[in-house]
Amino acid sequence: MKRILGIDPGLLHTGWAIIESTGNTRQYIASGVIKPPAKSLLPERLAIIFSDIDKICKDYSPDECCIEITFVNKNPTTTLLLGHARAAAMVAVGTNKIPIYEYEPTMIKKSITASGRADKAQVATMLKILLPDAKPKTDDESDAIATALAHSNMNRFAIH
Amino acid sequence: MKRILGIDPGLLHTGWAIIESTGNTRQYIASGVIKPPAKSLLPERLAIIFSDIDKICKDYSPDECCIEITFVNKNPTTTLLLGHARAAAMVAVGTNKIPIYEYEPTMIKKSITASGRADKAQVATMLKILLPDAKPKTDDESDAIATALAHSNMNRFAIH
Repeated sequence: MKRILGIDPGLLHTGWAIIESTGNTRQYIASGVIKPPAKSLLPERLAIIFSDIDKICKDYSPDECCIEITFVNKNPTTTLLLGHARAAAMVAVGTNKIPIYEYEPTMIKKSITASGRADKAQVATMLKILLPDAKPKTDDESDAIATALAHSNMNRFAIH
Repeated sequence: MKRILGIDPGLLHTGWAIIESTGNTRQYIASGVIKPPAKSLLPERLAIIFSDIDKICKDYSPDECCIEITFVNKNPTTTLLLGHARAAAMVAVGTNKIPIYEYEPTMIKKSITASGRADKAQVATMLKILLPDAKPKTDDESDAIATALAHSNMNRFAIH
């Protein structure tokens, strides 16, 4: 049995999910969204993401963590801020001595739907089939569950 | 008297410096460079930056921290990685409840040399005049000292 933490980082909303993987069985354990107060400034947002992910690591003791690789998109400034959120989460996981695996978004989609270009609806449908107990309320939560599930399905590309 | 921590973040080298500011007097206390081992992967580098800055905060108990604002430059991917290093340092400072101030690079140069377009040599010369005890061995260390010194000279633009 392996307990996996999936994270979908963001300065506004950071989705997280814990699933358990035993052989071919996947079990939903918990998930949620970290939402720093609307008026929080950057250092405060990073500290909240760090302390919440730290608490999740301590509460659920995951064996491994997985997180999407961030690519620079049309808006490099937004990407830079996303990188800050991502690093705050990674630091929390790293200081808890949990290995972190990084995946490209297409790899995550492919390992769940068999297509790297699947849309959100297709991923959501597969999540319902594969993890019926998970009832994500937001895209961030759903993406975190998908990341954890993808990791449980994949050959592992360890970066840590 | 106010003790100031200046940080020049980077995944390869993170410069840091502690100075004390009392009225018009500035005193060099300590500085150094955090260098994760050459083969470290991203999560490991972030964890080292976090734990070293955390130790510096605990060892020197600075009252305030200052750090350069990162702008997206010619290479957005490099900027994204720099953002990760910057966030790891900010999380360490933030979890120690030390307020963080962010400055544009031109503001730092201007408050030390009176020119926002000063080159490295000009900044280094002013550092020698203003803080003769500081003998930085690398650019990263020098930049961290300059950042702390600039903060001690400036009207404060608190972001936290």
